[in-house]
Amino acid sequence: MTLALWRSHLAGTLHRNRSLPVSRYLQLATVRTDGRPANRTVVFRGFLDDTNQLKFITDIRSQKVEEINVYPWGEICWYFPKTREQFRIAGQLVLVGAEHPDLALCSSRRRAWQEISEAARVQFAWPRPGANRAVSSAFEPVAPDAIEPLSNFCLLLLEPETVDLLELRGEPQNRLLYGRDGEGNWSVRELNP
Amino acid sequence: MTLALWRSHLAGTLHRNRSLPVSRYLQLATVRTDGRPANRTVVFRGFLDDTNQLKFITDIRSQKVEEINVYPWGEICWYFPKTREQFRIAGQLVLVGAEHPDLALCSSRRRAWQEISEAARVQFAWPRPGANRAVSSAFEPVAPDAIEPLSNFCLLLLEPETVDLLELRGEPQNRLLYGRDGEGNWSVRELNP
Repeated sequence: MTLALWRSHLAGTLHRNRSLPVSRYLQLATVRTDGRPANRTVVFRGFLDDTNQLKFITDIRSQKVEEINVYPWGEICWYFPKTREQFRIAGQLVLVGAEHPDLALCSSRRRAWQEISEAARVQFAWPRPGANRAVSSAFEPVAPDAIEPLSNFCLLLLEPETVDLLELRGEPQNRLLYGRDGEGNWSVRELNP
Repeated sequence: MTLALWRSHLAGTLHRNRSLPVSRYLQLATVRTDGRPANRTVVFRGFLDDTNQLKFITDIRSQKVEEINVYPWGEICWYFPKTREQFRIAGQLVLVGAEHPDLALCSSRRRAWQEISEAARVQFAWPRPGANRAVSSAFEPVAPDAIEPLSNFCLLLLEPETVDLLELRGEPQNRLLYGRDGEGNWSVRELNP
């Protein structure tokens, strides 16, 4: 697999924004089971090995997992305040839970668990997200194992199909649309902003 | 109309983040005509008079207008890095174009046009957004009138129905869900983060 055309641009953007931890926060839109859009902040966890797939993590008990199980498509909107660039990346979403049949992905899930902080891991031992607020003692579980993920820990992958890049710097702004054909080859064209 | 419960919280958040112009940027998710989610950054332009409706502006030629005409529902995700708060606000979207039958909304549209900068107004005289890139001279139109909006200028309103507020500060984090009943009364309950 060759790295997609847009990867070098995004790598440069991430590098120029590296001083801001918030530049790894982005917004993921999905479609709810009732057909309405949903939108929430997620944290970029890097690319999956040598693929173009973006990694995130989530709790299998969260609303978005239910949505993705019904309709596995998402669009992220990633705005970088320092360089004033916006990446809109749309594609298929893949959930990698404890029972995933692909062994390589299962080991990526385990590595993702090992790479997050203990504070992040402990949240997966908290009561069900989005349920009525539990008593405070429920938020003081014993720290989970640092090697083997809890069963509700999910790796979430986005396999990009289009990347719509807007550079707000410049007058007029630049806008590029990257797209992938059936064979996985990427092309790019310039659009009006 | 009374101000919704969540308004005072959002007002406080906006005040505490007022030093960052980027705190008026947020991400709006809609559903595309093919059923897939769409997500892009928009700029908050304040509330409509004494209502709870959030104001944005857009170009009638943009993709999102086509989407909203088919399915007028949106969810914004608004993350404030300084105070580490996230507001997810879902509700009906209302487009106010040149031909809108409500005269009060037409005059709000005109005021919105007058309140934006000349640089923002001139963008509405640029070639069609999202089309293949036009020659550079097409991006140097005469400055449009500062009083009467161009016909493709749209006011976009979001009428909130639910507000899901997550405060990342605190251990565990706080999460509140505000909802509106059929009579327009707001209630709130505490959820697990």
